[in-house]
Amino acid sequence: MIKVGIIGYGTIGKRIADAVAMQDDMKVVGVLKVTPDYEAKIALARGFPIYTYSDRFDKFKKAGIEPAGTIEDLIKASDIIIDASPEDVGRENKEKYYQRYDKPVIFQGGEEADVADVSFNALANYEEAKGRRYVRVVSCNTTGITRVLTSLILNGIGIKKARIFIARRGADPKEHKKGPINDVVPNPATVPSHHGPDVQTILKDIDIVTMAIAVPVTIMHMHMAYIELSSTYTKDAVIEAFVKTPRIFLADVGSGFQSLAHVIEYARDLGRSRSDFPEVAIFRDSVTIRGNELYLMYGVHQESIVVPENVDAIRAVLGILPKWRSIEKTDKTLKLITEGKVYG
Amino acid sequence: MIKVGIIGYGTIGKRIADAVAMQDDMKVVGVLKVTPDYEAKIALARGFPIYTYSDRFDKFKKAGIEPAGTIEDLIKASDIIIDASPEDVGRENKEKYYQRYDKPVIFQGGEEADVADVSFNALANYEEAKGRRYVRVVSCNTTGITRVLTSLILNGIGIKKARIFIARRGADPKEHKKGPINDVVPNPATVPSHHGPDVQTILKDIDIVTMAIAVPVTIMHMHMAYIELSSTYTKDAVIEAFVKTPRIFLADVGSGFQSLAHVIEYARDLGRSRSDFPEVAIFRDSVTIRGNELYLMYGVHQESIVVPENVDAIRAVLGILPKWRSIEKTDKTLKLITEGKVYG
Repeated sequence: MIKVGIIGYGTIGKRIADAVAMQDDMKVVGVLKVTPDYEAKIALARGFPIYTYSDRFDKFKKAGIEPAGTIEDLIKASDIIIDASPEDVGRENKEKYYQRYDKPVIFQGGEEADVADVSFNALANYEEAKGRRYVRVVSCNTTGITRVLTSLILNGIGIKKARIFIARRGADPKEHKKGPINDVVPNPATVPSHHGPDVQTILKDIDIVTMAIAVPVTIMHMHMAYIELSSTYTKDAVIEAFVKTPRIFLADVGSGFQSLAHVIEYARDLGRSRSDFPEVAIFRDSVTIRGNELYLMYGVHQESIVVPENVDAIRAVLGILPKWRSIEKTDKTLKLITEGKVYG
Repeated sequence: MIKVGIIGYGTIGKRIADAVAMQDDMKVVGVLKVTPDYEAKIALARGFPIYTYSDRFDKFKKAGIEPAGTIEDLIKASDIIIDASPEDVGRENKEKYYQRYDKPVIFQGGEEADVADVSFNALANYEEAKGRRYVRVVSCNTTGITRVLTSLILNGIGIKKARIFIARRGADPKEHKKGPINDVVPNPATVPSHHGPDVQTILKDIDIVTMAIAVPVTIMHMHMAYIELSSTYTKDAVIEAFVKTPRIFLADVGSGFQSLAHVIEYARDLGRSRSDFPEVAIFRDSVTIRGNELYLMYGVHQESIVVPENVDAIRAVLGILPKWRSIEKTDKTLKLITEGKVYG
């Protein structure tokens, strides 16, 4: 039973905690919280011991929560750390704490790539994480792109170049202070956005350029992809690759999937925790072949897409299971869509 | 003095009426309204006689507005007709009314291309409209793309292919029943969207594919463009082309233009009627050259971009002025940004 400590219990951390708790080969030994808010009470209710920074003990006690210990106590109690802190705080934690303990740490995509020895996506480079001290699960958009491109590569469809145009969600549902409202924001105004180079931390030889705008939605990101293939492939071959690849869902307009909202409504109807949709949702009707050009649109659920990747990263780092057995186990325990999927 | 009759006084029609009224070589002889609403009262206040369909007379009289006549009376009173009716109504009007009178008619981009003898963009094919009976000013997004591509072509920058990724505004500011809210909608889910083929009604030899999504904004459309050039050009050459081309505005992040909202705020601060921005607003920071690839982002103001095109179309059809003299006259009378622009 792998003892997992989770540093940061926000949008990503709380989801990873729940996902780890659903596995039979690992358990949550504690979560680090900074504020004794409603999320802290949820953590307690789920049986996750709460740790905090030593200077936050009083705040927690005043709120009626007795901390189980400091961040260092949590590190000592863990076999492996998941750092799901806000952007750049992971690096601070590394410098202040992680470097003093001989425990592997998995960072999130909010950190720069050089915080870790290797960037990680389960489909693309599971094996590269084995035995590493510091691993980084790439961010939501990068994970989505990497899955789509890897699906093609694993199925023998060569990629000459990928140009991806991203409409980013402006904020997560709970971020009441972020925007935009009624605006489209070049995000960034310069080209490329960081996503292209970030994909290259995993798919090192891929020719990729990305552009991004932010739009007033909290629901999901939407990507419009233009991919030049190494030769001509049929639409059927591309669709078959997506059908077979775990963590990719094909949404048909004819089945009622006309927009991102329908993908999330599907997750709600499935009874999924927090209405999450960790699969990349490809709009099947958008998949178009034109000579050696492939076009498609897909949604990326920013809050949950990296959750199964983190579960796999734990097994990959510790060498507990080989790639496809871990991916399959994660998908089944998290009740992802496994129909038609080929694991290995 | 050209007598212009405007059939349809909605989002586009009312703007064209104001623009025509600002010219010294044409005047509005009447506008066709279907409903005696606040917009009808604005038309009267501006001195535009109101015509309506014969079965709507009672409604107007009850609202205290005495119609000047029927649609046929307006056609007879005009030298040229601008049809700014809702989608497909232009074609109905053509079949029911226009075919019986020997007057040229300018349709809008909501109609299919085959409603007219020629599709029109002032920069791209002004001369082709001369003497035509039926002309169609292409839609807002198509006008935006056509201006950007024509700017390159006119300045000797060859285009191998253009791939444009469009985030469409979900609705116009006054459309309170349209969406989406908090959603991104493939619009359409299939590839290409109609914009690519529509550009080809003007730039017949261009290799273009477009994809489009709808997002919850009313402010402007945003395009992300990927253009393969016929050889390598410098960024300076591309920027110079845009600087010189009328109806293109370069928005600098350093000058405060960080998003579409800032472009419209600029229009508001300039004191422009209805806060309109008929120029294509290119984010200068997004203009990027990578080998023979050109990337850029630009905003298209859906309510106003076609207004100067309609004014020019009137002169082009009737052969009143040559291309560049008409474009310059229109830009100056409408107070578009003319600094640095080269007319011809």
